[in-house]
Amino acid sequence: MDIDAVKDALAAQAIEVPSWAYGNSGTRFKVFGSPGTPRDPFEKIADAAQVNLFTGAAPRVSLHIPWDRVDDLAALAQYARDLGVEIGTINSNVFQDDDYRLGSLTNADAAIRAKAVAHHLECLDVMRETGSRDLKIWLPDGTNYPGQDSIRARQDRLADGLAEIYAALRPDERLLLEYKFFEPYFYTTDVPDWGTSLVHCLELGDQAMVVLDTGHHAPGTNIEFIVAQLLRLDRLGAFDFNSRFYADDDLIVGAADPFQLFRIMHEIVQAGALDPAVGVNFMLDQCHNIEDKIPGQIRSIMNVQEATAKALLVDADALADAQVAGDVLGANAILMDAYATDVRPLVAQVREEKGLDPDPMRAYAASGYAERIAAERVGGQQASWGA
Amino acid sequence: MDIDAVKDALAAQAIEVPSWAYGNSGTRFKVFGSPGTPRDPFEKIADAAQVNLFTGAAPRVSLHIPWDRVDDLAALAQYARDLGVEIGTINSNVFQDDDYRLGSLTNADAAIRAKAVAHHLECLDVMRETGSRDLKIWLPDGTNYPGQDSIRARQDRLADGLAEIYAALRPDERLLLEYKFFEPYFYTTDVPDWGTSLVHCLELGDQAMVVLDTGHHAPGTNIEFIVAQLLRLDRLGAFDFNSRFYADDDLIVGAADPFQLFRIMHEIVQAGALDPAVGVNFMLDQCHNIEDKIPGQIRSIMNVQEATAKALLVDADALADAQVAGDVLGANAILMDAYATDVRPLVAQVREEKGLDPDPMRAYAASGYAERIAAERVGGQQASWGA
Amino acid sequence: MDIDAVKDALAAQAIEVPSWAYGNSGTRFKVFGSPGTPRDPFEKIADAAQVNLFTGAAPRVSLHIPWDRVDDLAALAQYARDLGVEIGTINSNVFQDDDYRLGSLTNADAAIRAKAVAHHLECLDVMRETGSRDLKIWLPDGTNYPGQDSIRARQDRLADGLAEIYAALRPDERLLLEYKFFEPYFYTTDVPDWGTSLVHCLELGDQAMVVLDTGHHAPGTNIEFIVAQLLRLDRLGAFDFNSRFYADDDLIVGAADPFQLFRIMHEIVQAGALDPAVGVNFMLDQCHNIEDKIPGQIRSIMNVQEATAKALLVDADALADAQVAGDVLGANAILMDAYATDVRPLVAQVREEKGLDPDPMRAYAASGYAERIAAERVGGQQASWGA
Amino acid sequence: MDIDAVKDALAAQAIEVPSWAYGNSGTRFKVFGSPGTPRDPFEKIADAAQVNLFTGAAPRVSLHIPWDRVDDLAALAQYARDLGVEIGTINSNVFQDDDYRLGSLTNADAAIRAKAVAHHLECLDVMRETGSRDLKIWLPDGTNYPGQDSIRARQDRLADGLAEIYAALRPDERLLLEYKFFEPYFYTTDVPDWGTSLVHCLELGDQAMVVLDTGHHAPGTNIEFIVAQLLRLDRLGAFDFNSRFYADDDLIVGAADPFQLFRIMHEIVQAGALDPAVGVNFMLDQCHNIEDKIPGQIRSIMNVQEATAKALLVDADALADAQVAGDVLGANAILMDAYATDVRPLVAQVREEKGLDPDPMRAYAASGYAERIAAERVGGQQASWGA
Repeated sequence: MDIDAVKDALAAQAIEVPSWAYGNSGTRFKVFGSPGTPRDPFEKIADAAQVNLFTGAAPRVSLHIPWDRVDDLAALAQYARDLGVEIGTINSNVFQDDDYRLGSLTNADAAIRAKAVAHHLECLDVMRETGSRDLKIWLPDGTNYPGQDSIRARQDRLADGLAEIYAALRPDERLLLEYKFFEPYFYTTDVPDWGTSLVHCLELGDQAMVVLDTGHHAPGTNIEFIVAQLLRLDRLGAFDFNSRFYADDDLIVGAADPFQLFRIMHEIVQAGALDPAVGVNFMLDQCHNIEDKIPGQIRSIMNVQEATAKALLVDADALADAQVAGDVLGANAILMDAYATDVRPLVAQVREEKGLDPDPMRAYAASGYAERIAAERVGGQQASWGA
Repeated sequence: MDIDAVKDALAAQAIEVPSWAYGNSGTRFKVFGSPGTPRDPFEKIADAAQVNLFTGAAPRVSLHIPWDRVDDLAALAQYARDLGVEIGTINSNVFQDDDYRLGSLTNADAAIRAKAVAHHLECLDVMRETGSRDLKIWLPDGTNYPGQDSIRARQDRLADGLAEIYAALRPDERLLLEYKFFEPYFYTTDVPDWGTSLVHCLELGDQAMVVLDTGHHAPGTNIEFIVAQLLRLDRLGAFDFNSRFYADDDLIVGAADPFQLFRIMHEIVQAGALDPAVGVNFMLDQCHNIEDKIPGQIRSIMNVQEATAKALLVDADALADAQVAGDVLGANAILMDAYATDVRPLVAQVREEKGLDPDPMRAYAASGYAERIAAERVGGQQASWGA
Repeated sequence: MDIDAVKDALAAQAIEVPSWAYGNSGTRFKVFGSPGTPRDPFEKIADAAQVNLFTGAAPRVSLHIPWDRVDDLAALAQYARDLGVEIGTINSNVFQDDDYRLGSLTNADAAIRAKAVAHHLECLDVMRETGSRDLKIWLPDGTNYPGQDSIRARQDRLADGLAEIYAALRPDERLLLEYKFFEPYFYTTDVPDWGTSLVHCLELGDQAMVVLDTGHHAPGTNIEFIVAQLLRLDRLGAFDFNSRFYADDDLIVGAADPFQLFRIMHEIVQAGALDPAVGVNFMLDQCHNIEDKIPGQIRSIMNVQEATAKALLVDADALADAQVAGDVLGANAILMDAYATDVRPLVAQVREEKGLDPDPMRAYAASGYAERIAAERVGGQQASWGA
Repeated sequence: MDIDAVKDALAAQAIEVPSWAYGNSGTRFKVFGSPGTPRDPFEKIADAAQVNLFTGAAPRVSLHIPWDRVDDLAALAQYARDLGVEIGTINSNVFQDDDYRLGSLTNADAAIRAKAVAHHLECLDVMRETGSRDLKIWLPDGTNYPGQDSIRARQDRLADGLAEIYAALRPDERLLLEYKFFEPYFYTTDVPDWGTSLVHCLELGDQAMVVLDTGHHAPGTNIEFIVAQLLRLDRLGAFDFNSRFYADDDLIVGAADPFQLFRIMHEIVQAGALDPAVGVNFMLDQCHNIEDKIPGQIRSIMNVQEATAKALLVDADALADAQVAGDVLGANAILMDAYATDVRPLVAQVREEKGLDPDPMRAYAASGYAERIAAERVGGQQASWGA
C-alpha cells in the first residue's frame, strides 16, 4: 500500500455541490425554512463556497435552471470564481411548469415537447455563459395510471427530443441522462432505469452519458454492479450522491448505508475512475429537510472522502489473488479489513497538509458564518425548490 | 348465491370521502392546480356532495383540522346536511407547523408535545360541533438519521400523549391510530406498522382502533392478512383507501392492483364487516395530482363498489368446502371465478334501483357542474394541503 | 372491435410449456412429491401433451439439459410429435454441478468456463437433434459476499463465453439470454437485469435476444415498461411466465397479479407481437409445489388466454384518442373496461370452435389420466429439478 | 467511557450457534457439499465446539429436531459439555414431512394439527433431556394461492395449537415464536410479522416471547425499531442473526449491512439487554452455501463482537444530550463516531486477556482441524437440512 499515493488521491478528489442544497426543500407535507437561507443564486454560491473553504474538496457548484437564472450569468460565474469555486453542471427543470403536467419531452402535445426542447437549448446557452461542460437531464416525465399514455410512443418522443438537444451540443460538451425508479409519477417513469438511459445514450452518441443517482433504484438493487457495468461500457457520466432507506429520501450521502457507499467507491477505485480523465463527475444531490444545510453539505463531503479513503486502502493485489483462488472468506476479509479501518485520522492529515483545519465541522461552526447569514439575510423570499 | 342479498349489501354500502381530495395536492416537486378548485371548506363540502349525488354511496365527508377550520363549524355541518351528506371523521394535523420539525407527540421538547396534545383536544371539540364520532390520528413523526433521537424514548412519549388524548374521549367516541411505513421522515417512523398501532391501542383501551391505509406498507406486504388479523382482534377501526405501485402514491383506489382490493374486500365480507355495526369505517384518502378531482372520487367509489360486488359473489360454502378438502386449485378457482365476473351491470342495476343514473361518470360529466364551478370560483386562494 | 379477429388471434395463440413443470420441484425447505410424477423425459412429454390436448394452445415443450437428456433425442422428438407436440426451446443448466459453485461462464477458473461453454455447445447439438430453434441461457452465476470476486472481470468472462457460444449458432438459431434479480446467489448476480442482458445481446449480434421471466425483477418494477422497451428495440426473444408476490415464487401465471399480466399482454398486442413472426416465444416457467401439476399447467394456459383476450378487447383507437387528448381518466377507463370484461365465455367459444371442451379443467379431470398415471407410474425415481 | 466495562461486556458476550450450520445447506437449485461435513449430531457438536474454542464466545449449540435426534440425548449433552459447550435452544421442524404440505399447526386437518402439536411436546422432552430452556418455533405454514385457505381460520387454529404446547411448559421454560415475511409459502404466511407473533405471545402468557430473525422482514423494514419496541414490551426472546441483501439469504451476519447490525446492537446496549438476565438469546441462523462452515461461523461471531464493541463505545450521555437538544447532525455524529472506530484491536485484546489467540480465523486455520475432519469423515451421509 503506497500511503502517499492514497493521500494524493484523496487530496485531489473533487465533489461537486448543488446550488439547491442551500435553499429550502422538504417533502410534499412540509418544507421547513431556516434562518439565513439564501434568497438568490449569489447567496447560494456564497454558501457553497463555504463548503469548499472548509473541506478543500468542493470546487464546483451545479446550477438548476430556472431556479438559478440571473440576468448576468457571467457575473454569477465570476462571483463564484472570486469565492474560489467554479460553476459546474447545468441542470434543466421540466417539472414545475403547468404545461408539463402530463410530461415534457414525452408529452403527447408537440408544442409542449418543443417548449421542453427549447428549455434545454437555453440551458446550453447557460453552460456557455458560465463555462460549464455538462447538461444534466433528470426527466421527471411519467404517468400515473395504466392506459394514460402509450409507453412506446413516449419512448419514441423522448428519443426525438433528446436527439434535437444532442444535435446542439458542441464537441466538448456532454449530455448526462439521469434515470429514476419512480416519483413524481407513480405508474410509468419514462427513464426508470440505467438500461433505458443507456439505450438512449447509445442512440445519441459518445457525448451522451448516464447519470447514476444513488437514491433512484428499486429496493435491493445492487448499485455497485451498475457502476461497474457503466464504467465497463464507458458510459458513467456522473453520480448524484445521497442516501436513502426507502425511496428517493435524499438524505446525506453515507448516512443510510455507509458500506454501500464504500462498495461503490471500491468499484470506482478498481476501475481507475477517480481520475478526472475518465469523466465521472461526483456530485451531491440531497435535501436537508431538518438539518442545517451548510454543515449537512460538509458532512456529506466528509462521508464521501472517508468511503474513498477506505476504498483506496483495499489491498488490490491480495484481493485479486484471493478472488482468483476462489477463497470466498479470504477475499471478503480483505475488503472488510479496509472497511473496518478508521480513516478519520488519514483524511484529517490530508486536510492539514492542504492547510485546512482537520475538522471541517468544528471549523465551520467556529467561523461564525451561520450566525452572520442569519443576521444579514432578513427579508426577501428564501430560495426553495419552487423559486 | 342470494343475488338480492348481494344487491342489498351493495345498496347499503357507504364510503366516506376526504375534504382534502377536492383541493389541490401533489408531490414535493409540483402541485398542479385546476380551474374550479374549492377555496374554502364549504366549497369542498359542495364538491363532496356531488360525489354522493351521483354514486349514492358517499354520505360522509372527513374533515382535516386546521385545513377545514371555519368559525362556525355547526354551520358547516348544517351546510353538509343540506347537501345530503354528514361530517365524518376528524383528522388532526401535526405536520405543518414549524414546531413539529422534529416531531409532535414524540418530540423531545415537552412544550411541543403539549401543543400537539392540545391540538387533538381541539379536534375533539370539532367532533362535537360537527357530530363526528371518530378522531383519526396519522402521526407523521419520525427521524431522518440514525442516532437523531431515541426510538424508545419516542415510544414512551407517544404512549403518554395518546393517553392524554384518549382520556378526553367520551364513551361513544373513538381514537383511530393510523400507521405508515415511511414519509415524511426516512429513518424511523414512530408508528410504522400495524403492530405498533395495535400495541398502543391495546394500552389505551377499547375505544382505540387501528387505521389501515392501503398505501402505508412495505413492498410485498400482504394487506388482506392484516385486515383479517385486525378483524379477528376487533381492532380494525377504519380504512384509508387508495392505491400505489411504489410508496404512498395515493392513486385512485383499485387503480394499481384491483385484485388486491378484491382480496381485501373478500376478507371484509367473510368476516361480516360490511355491517356498520362492526365499526369499520371505509374511507378514501387519495391525491388527484393530474386527474380531475370530482370524477377521480366518483371513479374511486365505483372501484370499491365493484370490488365489493365481486367479493359478495364468492361462493362461500363451496370455498369453505374446497379449503377444508385441501383442494388448492379448486379453492383458488372459486375465488377467481368471482373475480372474473363482470359486475358492472350488477352495480349499475343497484344504482338504477336507487333512482340513480347507472353511469355516474357520464352523469356527472353531463351535469355541467365542472363547468359551473370553473366559471364561478374565480379569485381567492385554491385550497391545498397547505391551506 | 372485430370479434372474429379477436377469436382468430386467440385460436392461434401458442404457449410453450416446460418439461420440468411435470416433475417435482419446491423450495429449499422441502420438495413434495405426488403420485404419477414422471420418471423420465418421455413421461414428461406425455404429460405435457395432455395440456395441449385439452387446451389446444400448448403445442411445444421446452427441454432442460441434462435433465431431459436421453440416448436417442430424435426418438424423444418423434414421441412428442406422435402425441401432437413439438420440442421447443433447449435450456442449459450450469447450476447443479459442483464445479459451478463459484460460477460457470463467469468462473475465475478458465477450465470451468470452458466446461460451461462446452455444455452449451452440447445444447446446440440437442437443438439440432430435436428440431429446436432457441437456446435459452439462464445464468445462475453470482457471488454471495462483497469482494468475493470482481464484478468487472466476471462481465468480461461472460462476454467471452457468450461469444464462443454465439459463434457456434447457425443462421436460423437464436441465443436467448435471461436475466434475474437474485438467487441462487445473494450479493451480485452476473445477469441481474434487462440492461445487462441487452448489453450482451447487442455485443453478440442479431440472433441474441433477451428473455423476460416475470418473476425476476426487483419489487415494484414495471414489467410492461420493459416489455415495451425490448419490443421497441427488437430484442424481446421470449417470456418465462409465472407469478410472484415476493421473489421468484414461480407460482401459476396470473395468480398473483392478473392485472399485471393483462398490462403485459396489452403491450404485446399494441406492438403486434402476438404474431409469431415478431419472434416472441411465450413460455411458462413455474413450480407446482403444492398443487397438481397437469391441472396447474392447464390453469396457467387459461390464465394467459384470458389476459390475452382482454388485451385484444381494448378499443385501441379510442385509447389512442384519449391518450393524445390528455384525458387521464378517460384513457384509463378504456383500458379498465377491457379488463373488467368477463372473457371466459369468449375463450370457451374459441375452444369449442376448435373442437375442444370449453372447460379444460373439468375435461382433464374427467379423462381419468391422473388416476391412470398414478396407478401406472410405480417404482423408479420421480423426476425433479435434481434429476 | 469506561473501557474496562466495555471489555468486560465483550468478554461476557455469548452467542449461540446452530447445529445445522455445520451440515450442508443451500438453495432450491443446489446444495454444495464439502469434505469433512458432519454426518451425525455428535460431529456437528464437535465442529460447533471448535467455534467456541477459538472465539470463547459461542458456549451453546442449538439443536433441530428431528435432524439432531439421537437415541441418547443425555449422552449428546454430555458430549457437548465434555467439549466445553452446552445444548441451547431446541428448534422444532414442521416443514419436512409430507403431511405438512398444506400446513402444520394451521392445517385444516385436525389430525395433522395434532401431529404437529405432538411433535412440539416431543421437543419439550428433548429440552428436558438436554438441559435446554427454550423451545423455538419457526412455523413455515402458509398458502400459495388466494382462496387456498381461510386466513382467519388458520389464525384460530394456530392459537389453539400454541395454547396446547404452551400449557405443557414448565415454569422455567419458554416458548419462542419466530416470524417470517415469506417462504416457503408465497401468498400468506401464518406468522409473517412481529405483530402477529406478539399477538399470539400476549394471548399465551409471560413465557411466550418473540424471535427476531434479521432476514425475515419486508424490504426496507427498520429492524432496530422492532428490537426497541419488543424490548420495551419485554417480549424480545431471541435473535436469529444472519444477513441478507434480498430475501432470507441467510448470509454471514454483518456481511450485507454491518451498519444495520451496529444499529441493532446499539438498541440492545441502550436497553441494557446484553445482560443475560433480560432474557434475549443471541443466536446465529445462517447457511454456508459456498464458504467453509466453521470459519464462516467464526467470522460471524467476530462480526457480532465488533458490532457490539462499537455499540458499547457510543457516548450515551453525549448522545442523549444532543438528542434532547434537537441537534440532528450532532446526535448522528456521536453515533457515527463510534461506528467509525476500528474496534478490531480492542476485541483482539479481549481475546488475549481470555487466553485466546487474538485472530481466531488464523488460529483455526493453523489448527489443522479442517484437514483432520476432511480425512476422517469419509463415508456415511453428510448431514444437511434434510437429514
